[in-house]
Order: sequence, then structure tokens, then C-alpha cells
Amino acid sequence: MYRFNNDYSECAHPRILKALLATSEEQYTGYGADEITEQAKKRIREKCRNDNVDIHFISGGTLTNLTFISHALKPYEAVIAASTGHINVHETGAIEATGHKVIDVETNDGKLTPELIQPILDEHVDEHSVLPAMVYISNTTEVGTVYTLEEIKRLSEYCHAKELLLYLDGARLSMGLAVEESNLQFSHLAEYLDAFYIGGTKCGAMFGEALILVKEDLKKNFRYHMKQHGAIMAKGWITGLQFYELFQDDLYDKIGKHCNEMACILKTFFTEQGYTFSTHSKTNQIFPILPNEVIKRMSRDYMVAEWKKIDETHTAVRFCTSFATTQQEIERFCNDFQNYVK
Amino acid sequence: MYRFNNDYSECAHPRILKALLATSEEQYTGYGADEITEQAKKRIREKCRNDNVDIHFISGGTLTNLTFISHALKPYEAVIAASTGHINVHETGAIEATGHKVIDVETNDGKLTPELIQPILDEHVDEHSVLPAMVYISNTTEVGTVYTLEEIKRLSEYCHAKELLLYLDGARLSMGLAVEESNLQFSHLAEYLDAFYIGGTKCGAMFGEALILVKEDLKKNFRYHMKQHGAIMAKGWITGLQFYELFQDDLYDKIGKHCNEMACILKTFFTEQGYTFSTHSKTNQIFPILPNEVIKRMSRDYMVAEWKKIDETHTAVRFCTSFATTQQEIERFCNDFQNYVK
Amino acid sequence: MYRFNNDYSECAHPRILKALLATSEEQYTGYGADEITEQAKKRIREKCRNDNVDIHFISGGTLTNLTFISHALKPYEAVIAASTGHINVHETGAIEATGHKVIDVETNDGKLTPELIQPILDEHVDEHSVLPAMVYISNTTEVGTVYTLEEIKRLSEYCHAKELLLYLDGARLSMGLAVEESNLQFSHLAEYLDAFYIGGTKCGAMFGEALILVKEDLKKNFRYHMKQHGAIMAKGWITGLQFYELFQDDLYDKIGKHCNEMACILKTFFTEQGYTFSTHSKTNQIFPILPNEVIKRMSRDYMVAEWKKIDETHTAVRFCTSFATTQQEIERFCNDFQNYVK
Amino acid sequence: MYRFNNDYSECAHPRILKALLATSEEQYTGYGADEITEQAKKRIREKCRNDNVDIHFISGGTLTNLTFISHALKPYEAVIAASTGHINVHETGAIEATGHKVIDVETNDGKLTPELIQPILDEHVDEHSVLPAMVYISNTTEVGTVYTLEEIKRLSEYCHAKELLLYLDGARLSMGLAVEESNLQFSHLAEYLDAFYIGGTKCGAMFGEALILVKEDLKKNFRYHMKQHGAIMAKGWITGLQFYELFQDDLYDKIGKHCNEMACILKTFFTEQGYTFSTHSKTNQIFPILPNEVIKRMSRDYMVAEWKKIDETHTAVRFCTSFATTQQEIERFCNDFQNYVK
Repeated sequence: MYRFNNDYSECAHPRILKALLATSEEQYTGYGADEITEQAKKRIREKCRNDNVDIHFISGGTLTNLTFISHALKPYEAVIAASTGHINVHETGAIEATGHKVIDVETNDGKLTPELIQPILDEHVDEHSVLPAMVYISNTTEVGTVYTLEEIKRLSEYCHAKELLLYLDGARLSMGLAVEESNLQFSHLAEYLDAFYIGGTKCGAMFGEALILVKEDLKKNFRYHMKQHGAIMAKGWITGLQFYELFQDDLYDKIGKHCNEMACILKTFFTEQGYTFSTHSKTNQIFPILPNEVIKRMSRDYMVAEWKKIDETHTAVRFCTSFATTQQEIERFCNDFQNYVK
Repeated sequence: MYRFNNDYSECAHPRILKALLATSEEQYTGYGADEITEQAKKRIREKCRNDNVDIHFISGGTLTNLTFISHALKPYEAVIAASTGHINVHETGAIEATGHKVIDVETNDGKLTPELIQPILDEHVDEHSVLPAMVYISNTTEVGTVYTLEEIKRLSEYCHAKELLLYLDGARLSMGLAVEESNLQFSHLAEYLDAFYIGGTKCGAMFGEALILVKEDLKKNFRYHMKQHGAIMAKGWITGLQFYELFQDDLYDKIGKHCNEMACILKTFFTEQGYTFSTHSKTNQIFPILPNEVIKRMSRDYMVAEWKKIDETHTAVRFCTSFATTQQEIERFCNDFQNYVK
Repeated sequence: MYRFNNDYSECAHPRILKALLATSEEQYTGYGADEITEQAKKRIREKCRNDNVDIHFISGGTLTNLTFISHALKPYEAVIAASTGHINVHETGAIEATGHKVIDVETNDGKLTPELIQPILDEHVDEHSVLPAMVYISNTTEVGTVYTLEEIKRLSEYCHAKELLLYLDGARLSMGLAVEESNLQFSHLAEYLDAFYIGGTKCGAMFGEALILVKEDLKKNFRYHMKQHGAIMAKGWITGLQFYELFQDDLYDKIGKHCNEMACILKTFFTEQGYTFSTHSKTNQIFPILPNEVIKRMSRDYMVAEWKKIDETHTAVRFCTSFATTQQEIERFCNDFQNYVK
Repeated sequence: MYRFNNDYSECAHPRILKALLATSEEQYTGYGADEITEQAKKRIREKCRNDNVDIHFISGGTLTNLTFISHALKPYEAVIAASTGHINVHETGAIEATGHKVIDVETNDGKLTPELIQPILDEHVDEHSVLPAMVYISNTTEVGTVYTLEEIKRLSEYCHAKELLLYLDGARLSMGLAVEESNLQFSHLAEYLDAFYIGGTKCGAMFGEALILVKEDLKKNFRYHMKQHGAIMAKGWITGLQFYELFQDDLYDKIGKHCNEMACILKTFFTEQGYTFSTHSKTNQIFPILPNEVIKRMSRDYMVAEWKKIDETHTAVRFCTSFATTQQEIERFCNDFQNYVK
């Protein structure tokens, strides 16, 4: 059985494990106040081309989202997200559990625009409704699409004109930035966003996300808020170390690029076989629409995620590639696939 | 200026004020543990034809909803409501502030059905999403429509088969039950619902709602939960007294009937004048679609609530009638209206 | 049975009921945006000698405390209170339910001082503990004592030097300010406190407290926070009206003075009879230590609150006087008391 | 610089790192639904001699405590803890942030007894106070002491008679169980406790705690609650793997025994040198009272935690030993210490 169902089925990039072993006999200061973590932050700040951002390492995406969003919002403030947004559908109400409404917006492609947000502002006009105060976007989105530089700029200008914070969930940021035609580069993030997180878990790490606080107001006492939500790890350097390694020799970029390339081969294969996709993804998640019969046979050898029922006999399924996916595995799959369509 | 904009512009039914004065020189036990409150509960239980329901008096609708819903749900459980539901749009995220997601459903008429709820259950299948555990309905709905007995029965059977609590917000229950063709009577409520509240504020009281807990599991320690949310008033008998009076000689029923009758005259008038309505209401809220010019002129003498923009030149407005609305005022309005359409 | 057990056993001062009746046939704007409420605020601002304070009317003390404190604090911030403080022991964890720790301090007399607060600041030094950010005091305290002007000034200077908000629970403010030797006057409150509430429920109103926000930072969007906690009443003018009346012709001051005078007669009586008290109160709550046998006999005619077991045969009980307590009743009690000691 | 300041300064036991590497090229099911995690649970159930306990792996102690406690308590329920309890002082109000009061009790030795708990039950008698519903204990305690089997049995009987849940924080359970004279063994835990967690972070793991749910009522839907608090890791098998290894060949027991033995050498050394201790610990945390001058000199080479000021010239400091502490290091310290006392 080979797993294409997600991008977190393998432990960690070999360079990360090597770095872990190399430091395993040392003693470090606890709670992320160590030197390795400091060095990791330094590298990320360089990558962001911004010396002033605050950086915090947290073990996973849901914990990062809930800790950050509840830190940034006042009790009666709400966050706007695409209906497909991870905080809206796949975090078990984690944001609401901290007291905040998630206002969801239907989209075609998982992406928000000023035009989609404005009607919400128009409807929320007084104290009988929540106060929209943040826009949450994901890049790549949960359906594999990406924002272009131009789209991020427009959103940023709009949000700041409307006094909305703009926050980006970068669980798959590595893959999002690897889409060259989007023109979006690492250094744009701290320029246009108020905060974002750099995903580690789905981009080569054992676990861990790096939350970047750009806007000055958001920085104060954030570690209190982290501790209160159980988001400070005792052996914090283990997370710091992983990002230290990911941001050496552009490993983070390379992983994203590799994942997208592997997915691209799969996508080309399915296209050539005459299949269509439920969303147009250029990243490491692709969603071919396959006959249920084929999926059934395929599932004996390859695990994929059933995404959306299309009609009585077809389903869109998600294939994910990861840092560990090899071209050899993809090719083996393509060969095997012929057996499933018979 | 006469106010048709809502049904809470006047103090209280004269019988309530009279009862208040009549008892004002006595001493009573605090926190609702007094004899008047006990008698009020007795009357409501009789009206419900159910001796076992628990009854709690709370000062307003939002406080009742948030206190009850957060009592009934476990942290990861969510409540399903129509998009127009009061808890979804007009309580400033009060439910989310207690930690629970409100899952909203688009409807045509503000009413939920099993067919509208089922897709939500289909989407919420594991621990990565919230667990839908309650259905919230309003009667009358926020757009003036009512549930029939048959509809309530179907919902009740469906909810209980799916292990969903069924809770009814009765802010305007008096008017809802006064619609005879719905066949829904007071005694049906405790038969089909797990909990509901009998609205006082919009039905003749100065303030106050009576929360009725039917399902046994919901009763335990509810007063702890009330106190924690500031929902126990020191001089609780003042609320109890109002319900004692509302449930004497069918005053509660009569108020609902009166409100609907007054609104009906208005509705007939607008219909005869050739206007249409944004929703089909038989209760005390009606929503005629009027030319903006007319609304502008009318607003010098009569206050109404702008409800929904229909097109560039027309708006649906809400007219509300109350226990204090007289036929004379309605007639005066109808006469005056001729001046606004010229 | 006559009730001395608390000061909320009677409906409301006759002047309030008269004012209620006098306005009961008018229509008013909802949610406290009416003219009477505006006038009530004007009177309170004059009494405070401060035109800039924001004023919000809320139905009860617990709801006021929880709404204000959770508005003022960030999630990881805590409030310091005397162990006897109402928020610490008699609000069913209402503050904690909004997410904030109450740090309690043992006191002799229910009053906080810089000396009692400093050790808490010394212990809370980093993000592994909550951040103390507010000091909560009550005047009168829950044990009947009062703060002097000098004590309030010292606390105020200390708190502001330490970046702690100073908030006063004035459930019985009327009685607190009526103690002349404290030198504390109404106009001092807005001078030295960041926020406080003027109690109505225990000082002559049917219900209602007036929250005064002095510090500028605390004012923004408070009505959103109120609505979210169910603390905005639809017929808000009914609360406004009560304060309008309480602040006409010094009624609020007179009620406090009257209550204290009635309690003083009782206190003198017990002192003359040779009894001692568990705390030294000059306000409307007194706590004589009586033999259990006496309490038992007395309880057939007079209701008091058992406060604290002193030893196997003695208990401190609370006698409260209210706006409605008459000298005649006190004298009747003193006469009757002779029957209980035999 | 050598670190004795805590027991989480080193990465992980070599056997854990070896196991991590050995599995690093495999693919596993996400979210802890993998085979290794299942095997780890099997081993723990065997150690508990209880096939029915539910087991969940969570990344750290604070996250475990807040997730479990807020799952087990109803909103108005509170948890009783020693004043020194980790949830009371070192988790930044994490429990309160989930809405629950921590009722703290002063103790001499960090341990709770029925006699210390009963007065709290006596004071909390109605809905104006929170409802005490859980007792939180730590073993070893935060001051290094341990519970005996007899003490745990008494507490268990008492708690269950009073309808209180009994929960044990086992951050340092390994060391607690290694104190032979306590007679407390692993198999007693599931017999007498309703829930507890087996600490990994401080007992040889990189991170991770194993929460054991014994009482049937506590089990339902716990994974929903975990996910909502960000406590389910995508690559869950990495945590499972660590416990799989810790519970092979009694490694967990051996680590505790080793830590205590190393601390014992230190303790004997200080005793022989004539020093006393602020608490009587037989576990891996010892608290010698040293002259400030000595501490200052010592701190150039050895990091310890300043625990409590004893007087103007003396301070109790904490020395911790870990799985990685060697006898050689201890001996080196003892030799070096002579230089600090001169």
C-alpha cells in the first residue's frame, strides 16, 4: 500500500533527522529560549527580508491558528474565511471555542477577494452583529489553488483600508511559493500580510509551524497567550532546529518545488488519460475525477482521499505528494493505473 | 412620531404594571425562590399540560439563548440554525462566545426542515469537524413566518432519530401560536421540543423570558449555569410576577392574537394598495416592499425598520405591531399613507 | 416573617415606581438609545463631575462584573480580588467562565492595599503565570467595611504606577458613600478609578447597575461586548428611568444614608445588649455574633443570613437594612428580641 | 555550563532516537491512527493491567491538562488543586481560559488529603458558587514529594464518595513510581484514579504525554475535544513511537529510577555538607538551601533554578536530574562545589 492520501505520511526530510541526531547529546535552554531557535529565527527573518518580525514556533497548524487568532481579536470580533477554509471546516470549531465567530464566504476556488468580502462588511454595521476584524486566507488553499502577488496586494490594500487584519495560513506555503507564475515570493509576505505561518508539518518537518507576526500591535505578550494554550513546548529547540535546517540552502523552497513537480507528473498523466479535475491546482494536491469502479480497484494498492462526490458513478479524489515522493513511485503508479481502468 | 419599527417600544401591558404595584410593598425571597414565581411556574406548567418541565425566568432573549445553548452542548458540539436565525445574525456572536459554532443553513422562509438539515449531518462525520448536536428554530421566525404542527412533528421525529436536541426560540411565541391555521397549540410544545422559551419582552412584559426545559438531561444544575452567566436576578419575583399575570385569563394568547390582528389590517391595506411583501407573514411583523421615496416621506411621521434593499428604488420595510397598538393608530396611518404616495 | 436577610427583598423605591407609571404609555427607542436614558446619564455625569465618562446600564451585578472585566482584560490577564470579593466567591466562577483567573488575597476586613497586592506582582514575573492586570475592590465591601478617600487614593496611585486597572464594584455604593468619616465622595470616583459601577438593585431600584467607564481605552465598542453577553435590554429605558429617578434630588444618597442609619440603630442595640460583631461595619450590613439558640428562636419571626460559624454555640449572622426598612420595624425587632434571649 | 535547572534540557533517550530513525522511511496513517501508536497503547494497557482504558497522546503537559480538564467538567464545575499545583501557578491560567475555576488549597508538602479538601466542599453549597467536581494531584508533586499507595487509596475513596473526579498529573510519574517505599505501582493507577497522564517530556521523550482515561464517562468523543484544542498531531505516530519505546523492557521505570538515584547522590552530598532542604524529596528534584554567595559562584558553571527566597542571605534552589545525567557529572559537580563555598 502506497499513500497518496496526504502529505504527512512520512517522518521528516533526512537532513532534519540528521540535524536532530547531531545535536542530541547537547543540553539546551527550555521553552524555545535556546541558541538554535534564535538562529532559526535569524534565517527566517533574512528570508523575509525583515528584521523586525516576531517569530514563534508552534507544534501544529490548528494550534497555531487558534492561538494566533484568539490573540489578535477582541471578544466580539470575527474572522472572515472562505467556506473551504481550514479554520471553518477542519478544526472542530477551534476558533469558535476561543469565542470568535468564523464568517464563511462561498468561493469558486477557495480564494477570497475584496468583492467577496465587501458584502459581509455591508451586513455587519452595528453592535447587534459581530465586528469583522480579520481576513483568513490559505496559500496554497485547501483546494490546491494559489494566490498571485497581484491578488495578495489587492487584498492587503483592501483589508488595511477597512481596518481588517490579513492573516495567511501557510500549512503548504512551500508549495504555494513554488508556483512561479504567481510571482509571489517569500519577501512579499511580510510586506503585505499582518501575520502568517510557515508550515513545517506538511513541508518536510516532523512537526512544527513558524508563526510570523508582522504588525507591531500583534507582538506584545504573545508568549503568554501561547503558554495559556499549551503551545510552548518544553524542548522548544527541537522545533527550532527543524526550521533552522529547512531554511538552510533553500531546503524549504526545494521541498515545495519537488512536491509540485511530482504532482505535475501525476496531473499530466491523468489529463492525458482524458480525466478532468474538480479544481485547477498547480500544487501538490490534485483532484482528478475518477470512476468509482476505478477508485475501488486502485484503493487496494494506493491510498487516496475521497474528496467530493461528483455524480452517482464519479468521485473527485485527492492525490498528495510530499518531500519523500519519488518519480519512481509516480511512474509505478502510472503503470499500475492501467490495471484499474480495465 | 409613531413607532412601528419594533414590538418593544412600550413599557408593559397595563395588567402587568397593575400587578407590580399591587405587590410592591411586600417582601419576597430573592433569586426567584419566591411564591409568586412558583405560582407563575404552576400556571405555565398547566398551559403546557406537563407537570415535569423545569422553568427558569431570564431577563432577555439573547441571555436566554446563550445560557441555555451553552448549558446543553458539550464544548465540541454545534447548533444548526437558519441563516436568518437570531443567534446567527443578531446576537453579536453570543453563542460562539460560549465556545460553540453556529452552523447556518440558507432557507427561503426562515424555517428549517429535515431536508435542509440532513446535508449538514452528511458533511460532519468525524472529529475534524464539530459535532452537530442541536437544532435551533424560532416561532414566529425572524421573517414573520410560522411552523405548523405538522412541521414541528416532522422536525421533532427527525431530530430525535438523529440525536439532535430541538430548541425553539419563542421571542414571539405569542404571535406564532395565534395563527390558527398552523394548528400548533401551547400543549404541543412540551410534547415535541426538548426546550423552548416563552417570550415576554415582545409579548407584553417589561422584560423577561420563560425558559422551559423538557428533556430530563437538560435540567440538572441549570441554575449554576444561569448564575455564572449573570442570568439570575436578585429580585426574581418581578420577572415571575409578569409571567404570572401573562398566564392568567389567557392574557398571553390574547396579546398574540391582538398583535396579529393589527398587523393583518396593515397587510390588507398594503395589499389593496397593490404592494407586495418580501415574506409571507401572518403574524405581527409584515414586510411590504415600498418605493424609497414613499419610505422617506413616511419616515417623518412613522418609524419603521428598513429590512432589505430590493432594487435601486425599492426597499422592504418591517412594520411591527404590539400589545399596545390600537386599531385607531392603524387607521390613522392608513389615512396618512395617502400623503406619502403622492 | 420580616426579612433582614438581604437588601433586595422589596420591589423599588416608591418614586421609581411612580416614574415608571408616569411614562408607561409612551413609546421609546429600544436598546437604551432613548431620551430618558440619555438624561439619566447626564445626571450621573454631573454627579461624577466628569463629562467624559461613558455610562452603560446593565440589569445586575454579576452580569456587569463579567461583562466589564472580560472586556478590559486580554485573555492571559488576571484580576486581583480580596478572597471575600463577590467575583471570587459568589458569582459561580463567572469571571473564570470568560477565561480569566481571579487571584485572591486573604484580608482581615475585605479591603485591598498596595501591601497586599505587591507580593502577587512579585510572584507573577513571566509567561508561565497569568499577568495581573486589574484590581477589583468593592465599596462597601462584602463584609460591610468601607474605603476611605485616602485609601482609594493610595490604591489608585499604586495601581497606575504598576499598570493595573482599578475597578470598583459598587453594588452597595450608596451606603459606602454615606459613611461620612470616609471622606469619599461621588466626585472622587471618576478621579481615582478606571471604572466602577453604581449599584441600583440593592439601592432602591427594581434592578439595574450603572457601569461608569472612566479610562479612555476601556470605552471602545463596549456595547458590542454587552450585546454578546446578553447585557443590552430591549426596553432599555426602563433601567435608565430608574437611575434618572435615583439621581434626582439626591435620592441615591438619601437611600444609602437611610439604610446605614437603620442598621446603626440595630448595631447600637446589639452592642448595648453585650454582643460583638464579626466585622466592624458602619453600613447597612451588620454581623452580630449570636448564640445559636437565640438565632433559632429569632428565625421564627425574622429572617437573617447565617454568615459564619464562630464556635460550637455561636454564629455570626447578617442583618441587612434597605430603602424600605422603617424605624418602626427596627424597634419592633428590638422588642421582640427580648423573647429570643430568654 | 552544565544544566541542573530542569529535566528537559536534553533531546531524548538514545533508544527513542534510534527507534525514530529505524522507522523514518516508512509511511504511516496520520493523526495517531497508525499501527505503532496502537502497539504503544497495547503496552501501556498491559502495564496498567487494564484492557479498557482509553489512551491519547498529546504533545505536552499544559495542553494535556487543559484538554482533559475542560473535557471532563461542565461549565460551572471547578477543579481543586494544591496551591503549588502546576495548573494553579505555572500554566498561565490555561484552565481558567477554558472557563473553569481552579480552587487552590494551601499545603505543607504539595499533597492533597481528604482533610484539606473537605472545607472546600463545606463552603460550596449552592449555585452562587462554583461546583467542585474534580481533584487534581501531581505525582511527583511540584516540590518533589510523592504519594503513597495508602494516600492514593484514601483520596480515591473520599473523592468517589463525594462525586469528585480524581485526576493525576504524571509529568514526573516515572520518578514518582520509582520511590519504592511509597508502595505505589503502575497497576494501582488505573485502579484508583479516574484519569491520569504518563509524562514523556520529562521522562526521556522528545515530547509527549500519554493521557489515560479510566472512567467510562470520560471517554466519549475525547478526540473531538483534542482536535478542537489543537492537540492532535498530524504525524501522531512520532509520539506513539516514543511511548512504544518507553514501555519496552521497562525503560520508563528505569529512567525514573536512574533520575532518583542521581538526585540521591546530590542530596546525600548536600546533607553531608550540612545543608538543609526546603522540602523532603526522594525524587529527581531536590531543593537545598544555599547561601546566596555560593549560588552566585556556582552559577558560573552550573545552572540551577532559584526556587524560593528563605531569608536575606539564603535561597532554596532546585537541582533536577534527567535520563541523561551521569554519575560522572554529579561527581564533577561535587568536586567543583568545594570551590564555591570557600
